Amino acid sequence: MKEQIKVIAFDADDTLWINETYFRDAEVELATILSSYGSEKEVIDFLFKTEIGNIPLFGYGIKGFTLSMIQSAIEFSNYKISAKEIEAIINISKEMVVKPVVLLEGVEEVLKNFQSKGYKMVVATKGDLLDQQRKLKKSNLESYFHHIEVMSDKQEDDYSRLIQHLDIEASEFLMIGNSIKSDVQPVLSLGGQAFYVPFHTTWQHEVVDSEIVHPNMKSFKNISEILSVL
Amino acid sequence: MKEQIKVIAFDADDTLWINETYFRDAEVELATILSSYGSEKEVIDFLFKTEIGNIPLFGYGIKGFTLSMIQSAIEFSNYKISAKEIEAIINISKEMVVKPVVLLEGVEEVLKNFQSKGYKMVVATKGDLLDQQRKLKKSNLESYFHHIEVMSDKQEDDYSRLIQHLDIEASEFLMIGNSIKSDVQPVLSLGGQAFYVPFHTTWQHEVVDSEIVHPNMKSFKNISEILSVL
Repeated sequence: MKEQIKVIAFDADDTLWINETYFRDAEVELATILSSYGSEKEVIDFLFKTEIGNIPLFGYGIKGFTLSMIQSAIEFSNYKISAKEIEAIINISKEMVVKPVVLLEGVEEVLKNFQSKGYKMVVATKGDLLDQQRKLKKSNLESYFHHIEVMSDKQEDDYSRLIQHLDIEASEFLMIGNSIKSDVQPVLSLGGQAFYVPFHTTWQHEVVDSEIVHPNMKSFKNISEILSVL
Repeated sequence: MKEQIKVIAFDADDTLWINETYFRDAEVELATILSSYGSEKEVIDFLFKTEIGNIPLFGYGIKGFTLSMIQSAIEFSNYKISAKEIEAIINISKEMVVKPVVLLEGVEEVLKNFQSKGYKMVVATKGDLLDQQRKLKKSNLESYFHHIEVMSDKQEDDYSRLIQHLDIEASEFLMIGNSIKSDVQPVLSLGGQAFYVPFHTTWQHEVVDSEIVHPNMKSFKNISEILSVL
C-alpha cells in the first residue's frame, strides 16, 4: 500500500480536533431554551429531523445548523418562541464559532512523521468554509498541509471531484477519518484507501450499523497507531 | 501577457451569472416584513451594518446573510418581531437557494474559446460552498473548469493560498471578475494579472471610490470583449 500513496487526506472534525461535543452542547442549550415546550429528547429529535430536511438546501456546518435550530424553535414552540429566545439561539452559534480548537492526542506527532516521509497531505472536511479555515489556523497545523478542501458533502461524487482536482488516481489516495459513512465507504467504493479512527461521539446522521471489512481499509483505536503501518 | 498565463480564474457571482439582484430582492422582502418598524432604506442600512459586523464570524453567502437578516429583524423591531415573521425570513433564504442560474451574455462563448486554446480554468468565488457548487452545476459550465475554489474571503492572503494551491507563480495567474476590491486589487498586489468586467449592480461592501490604472490590469465593458486580447 505504502508505495503507491501520493496524497493523504485527513478529515478534520473529530479526527484532528474535537468538534462533535460542541454540537451536542449546543443541542442541550437549545433544549433548555425550549424546555417549556417539551423534553430535551423531544427537542433534539425534532432538531435532527429539521437538519436532515435542510441538508439539501443548507449543507453542513454551524450556519446551516443554526438556521435549523431557529426553524425548530419556531415550529416546536408552535410559533410561541420570542424574539429574545431566537436571539439567544443566534448567540449559541456565535459562541460555537469562537470555541477553542482542541487537538486530539497524537495528531501532531503523526503529521510530523508523515511530513518527514515526504507525503503530500491535505485536509478534506465538510462544514462551513470560513469556520474550517479558522480552526485550521488556530490549530497551528496549517504548515503540514498542502491545502484544505472543504467539501459540500462526502459522497462518492464529491471524492471523485477531489481526486480529479488532486490530479491523481483513486488508488493513490488515502483518507483518514472518524466516519465510516463519510470517510471510509465512498473512498473504498472509488478504489481508494481508507484508515478509520473512531471518535467517542458520532452524530446520528453519520452512524452506520454494519461493520465493514475491506482489503483497502484498516481500523485503529487512535491516530498514533497509524505510525505502525505507514 | 498571453504566453505566461497558466491558470485563468473566473469570479462566479455577477461575472458568470446573475447574483446580486437576488440579494437586493431579498433585502426589499425583508424591508416589507419590517415595514411597520421603519422605512425600506432604514431596514437596508441596518441590515448592512449587521452583515459587516457578522462577516468575521459568518463570512459570505446566503446562510450568513440569512442569520444577519434574522438578527436585524430582532433588533430593528426592538424584539417585537414574531416567530411567523422570522419563519418568513428563513423562507426567503430557502427561495434564494433554488433561484435559477441566469448566465451573463457571452460567458459560454468566452469559456469555449479559452478551452480551445488550452487554458486551465478555475472558478474562484466567495459564498456558501454548497450554493456555489449547485449554481455551477445548474449553469452547465462545469466541464469548462478544472475545479471550483470557494474562498472564505478575497484578500491578498486568500489569493496567496489559492496561487500556492495551484502550484504556479502569481505572474502566471489571471483573475477575471466584476469587483475591483475583491477580484482586481489583491491580485495586482501579488503580481498577478486581472481583467475587470463590471456588473450593473454592486454590493455596497464591494464598492471602491478610486479608479485604478495598472499595467497588469485591463477593463472591459462585457466579457465577450476579452476575446480581442486573449
